[in-house]
Amino acid sequence: MLVYANIVKFVKNSINMSLVIRKGKKEDMPAVLGLIKELATFEREPAAVVVTVDDLVRDGFASNPLFQTFIAVYDDEIVGMALFYNRYSTWKGKTIHLEDLIVKENKRQLGIGKALYDEVLKYALNEKVRRVEWVVLDWNTPAIDFYKKSGASILKGWETVQMTEENLINYINSVSNEDI
Amino acid sequence: MLVYANIVKFVKNSINMSLVIRKGKKEDMPAVLGLIKELATFEREPAAVVVTVDDLVRDGFASNPLFQTFIAVYDDEIVGMALFYNRYSTWKGKTIHLEDLIVKENKRQLGIGKALYDEVLKYALNEKVRRVEWVVLDWNTPAIDFYKKSGASILKGWETVQMTEENLINYINSVSNEDI
Repeated sequence: MLVYANIVKFVKNSINMSLVIRKGKKEDMPAVLGLIKELATFEREPAAVVVTVDDLVRDGFASNPLFQTFIAVYDDEIVGMALFYNRYSTWKGKTIHLEDLIVKENKRQLGIGKALYDEVLKYALNEKVRRVEWVVLDWNTPAIDFYKKSGASILKGWETVQMTEENLINYINSVSNEDI
Repeated sequence: MLVYANIVKFVKNSINMSLVIRKGKKEDMPAVLGLIKELATFEREPAAVVVTVDDLVRDGFASNPLFQTFIAVYDDEIVGMALFYNRYSTWKGKTIHLEDLIVKENKRQLGIGKALYDEVLKYALNEKVRRVEWVVLDWNTPAIDFYKKSGASILKGWETVQMTEENLINYINSVSNEDI
């Protein structure tokens, strides 16, 4: 657990407030899902979130967890989270992927996002991974500038390809028919 | 293990040849690294491959493996591989990421790539994941067309951000100095 002493830099008028960044626990998953849904609603895609608290608890806290989280607790309230997991590069080996970093809308500009970002990167350094990776929307200039300033680079020329579960079923059915 | 009966479609003049797609084993990792290095050399980045056979064996065959592979054996020779692993979407839950699909240069156009692609997608379907994801270079029109025809979509507007181990160390050092 790491208490950010430098929070006074960001919250000048709130001397008694405190920011704690800690590992996520099962009991945090309802609040984590709340943050995920708040952001999806803001992005006008609330129906796109099909993940449930049960999914998060099962998938994040199995013997072989699919993700980990850091949680930002500000003045005793969960106000942010970073969700990340390992990936594997055929060139570099083990890497860490930062899937999502969310701060409640009314708690932005307080340095909470940076505290979560730093914590994930410190974790990555301790894990001795050879790369940390994430994605950003190309119009999000403030975020891109922040990432670049911290030493990250934008990889040019790669497109993300996705196949949904529905299209996966259709494709496999069509391939199976070919095989007959 | 799945023997592709429909290989006759692709290899009309080689009736006695056979294509087998199977799960990768520890003993395959030297050949897998050979394929990775062949491709990196073709892309004029041979020095970028820092992964070793020991890394691949340790990371792919631990109790908590960081990746899995399918291997294409064509006429008793390892000529291709697909390397993939789980990722986690905060909206969809468990997904599969196809990191790399490589076919030896002199064994292309025989349907081996498609056989590996199909096998990964079948595996994903069995795992009941809600999405399969990978990346493609934006100039690689034949690949993009193939993916689209199979039901995948190109996600627009997202950029990949990467921080190397070296820049990670620099950033964390600078942040630690701030904290003092």
